[in-house]
Amino acid sequence: MKPADTENADSLITGLACPIPIVDYPHVVLAHGGGGRLTRQLIEDMFQPAFDNPALAAQNDSAVFEVGSSRLAFTTDSHVISPIDYPGGDIGRLAVFGTVNDLAVCGARPLYLSAGLILEEGFPMDHLWRIVCSMRDAAREANVRIVTGDTKVVDKGKGDGIYINTSGIGLIGASIEPGPENIEPGDAVLISGDVGRHGVAVMAVREGLEFETEIVSDCGSLVAMVAELLASGVPVHCMRDLTRGGMATAIIELAEQSSSRIELEGDQIPVKPGVRGACEILGLDPLYVACEGRMVLFVPEDAVEQALAVLRRHPIGEDAAVIGRVTENGRAKVTVRTEIGTHRLLTLLSGEQLPRIC
Amino acid sequence: MKPADTENADSLITGLACPIPIVDYPHVVLAHGGGGRLTRQLIEDMFQPAFDNPALAAQNDSAVFEVGSSRLAFTTDSHVISPIDYPGGDIGRLAVFGTVNDLAVCGARPLYLSAGLILEEGFPMDHLWRIVCSMRDAAREANVRIVTGDTKVVDKGKGDGIYINTSGIGLIGASIEPGPENIEPGDAVLISGDVGRHGVAVMAVREGLEFETEIVSDCGSLVAMVAELLASGVPVHCMRDLTRGGMATAIIELAEQSSSRIELEGDQIPVKPGVRGACEILGLDPLYVACEGRMVLFVPEDAVEQALAVLRRHPIGEDAAVIGRVTENGRAKVTVRTEIGTHRLLTLLSGEQLPRIC
Repeated sequence: MKPADTENADSLITGLACPIPIVDYPHVVLAHGGGGRLTRQLIEDMFQPAFDNPALAAQNDSAVFEVGSSRLAFTTDSHVISPIDYPGGDIGRLAVFGTVNDLAVCGARPLYLSAGLILEEGFPMDHLWRIVCSMRDAAREANVRIVTGDTKVVDKGKGDGIYINTSGIGLIGASIEPGPENIEPGDAVLISGDVGRHGVAVMAVREGLEFETEIVSDCGSLVAMVAELLASGVPVHCMRDLTRGGMATAIIELAEQSSSRIELEGDQIPVKPGVRGACEILGLDPLYVACEGRMVLFVPEDAVEQALAVLRRHPIGEDAAVIGRVTENGRAKVTVRTEIGTHRLLTLLSGEQLPRIC
Repeated sequence: MKPADTENADSLITGLACPIPIVDYPHVVLAHGGGGRLTRQLIEDMFQPAFDNPALAAQNDSAVFEVGSSRLAFTTDSHVISPIDYPGGDIGRLAVFGTVNDLAVCGARPLYLSAGLILEEGFPMDHLWRIVCSMRDAAREANVRIVTGDTKVVDKGKGDGIYINTSGIGLIGASIEPGPENIEPGDAVLISGDVGRHGVAVMAVREGLEFETEIVSDCGSLVAMVAELLASGVPVHCMRDLTRGGMATAIIELAEQSSSRIELEGDQIPVKPGVRGACEILGLDPLYVACEGRMVLFVPEDAVEQALAVLRRHPIGEDAAVIGRVTENGRAKVTVRTEIGTHRLLTLLSGEQLPRIC
């Protein structure tokens, strides 16, 4: 590099103050990675202004753009889950499904994945192999190929066993491109299955909790189910998979992106009794607990039955349910009707409910 | 997930032993991420058999495939450099240039990048902002857009400030697709500039060394130079950018992938006096020290002058030189002629020369 380049680069930076008020957050805290209000602040105040472009500004699960005559979706996720293994999966399975699900809910057929591993010195080799096998099996299940990779090793004490980044490319079909801009008053809100199992399964292992029945993560691929749904002709207005921050966070974000008023029926939201019990013990709200194989969908009222029929044909969608509807357009607001008939307002979490859940 | 899925996943794994001999390497060591022999073993014995597909098997800097009528390149790199800032750059600049360079040397025009940040709790917010600005400036310089991202935060003591994964998509033009399969006897081997500066610059900061003249990393974008080279009509047979393991490792890999005998002229390889001196003090071979803005090129003898002229028009290529040639096809071998006229054999490093250099 020439000195001139350095000066140029410096001058581009000079004079721009950090957009996150240092007085409030002089340092990164766990909640900056939690998917709630602080993550949002980083994205909206720091990353979007810096990297300014329409694909990023759309705030979808994947960036969407045209290359030649094809419309592609591109997404990335780093996985730092602790513990690495949990009932129903491991970090490898999570890393593949997390990324293919982000592509699928944008209406894309996942084609190719990259895998970037950051290993901590001393990580057991046979454990690495189990994770690699898990990624291989998950990729087969989601019908996607892992075509490029990178491995870095950090010194002992500078990591936590293994972190995995997966980025993915998907191809968007000609017809439907679901997104928050299509959400309309009158749309039914559907959930593809029961919520909160992934987060509780991981927390149970981490905290050494034992329940009467083991709670198994919902971690799974939405790819085949979404493909059939779109092929069936159901006019899906919007889909989003649930992850950090759970169902509530996903629906709040979609309400804000579409300026919609959304009313949920609390007693219609599927939560397994074991998850409900565990959440009471742990002091968690299951609506905010992470899922890794669930999505919310917005479909016109007259397409609800067809959508449910398709979802329920897939084991991962057998508990699919209608949980509410979009009542108005104009101002974002999400409420959930409680058992006693009151309406509870759902808002983004400020703190970190479950660190390192994905 | 259904129990049936779990059983199925288990049965796919069961019975397959870890392909890395546990007796030799029961645990991951730093050298598994060093780019040398142990990294190679992981790739060839573990990742390639598990993820088995042609794009991965090609072992190029990027996976190349067709989507619709377009030919795309896709690559990923995680960056774990320590320290985060070094003379001539920082982890943000490195993360952008590392990935666009991987795309460029495959003959692709870099279009889109993803950015996956893993932050350690307690990382200073204004330092994060400087790195984000650095990524922004680097992306502008390389004419690429950062369109999707992800931020995770790990507990204090489970990271090292910041790790950045960047994945990238590039578009391959219709005409030339350079690759090791095109290397031929008679090809000249060119280097685009002096070698070893990035590694020495980083080591100097890490070890607190001071030299008479500060050694500045070569970290930079090859994108514009490669684009002009390809547009100029120079029939480039193969390009590869240098990173971990430096020039020697890149050339050894290319010799093996093309079964070529390559003879280098030691006195033609540009190494700055400061780098040479520092390498003597640190006990390093500059040919194996990391670069982050350099590439080797293979071009037919009669295109050498034209190639050099294009390279030298760019500040990042002003020290471009011919450093050797391909003498035979059939058996991979790389030698370098020393000052006293003997031929030294270059082989992949077994250990880790410079951990966490990128």
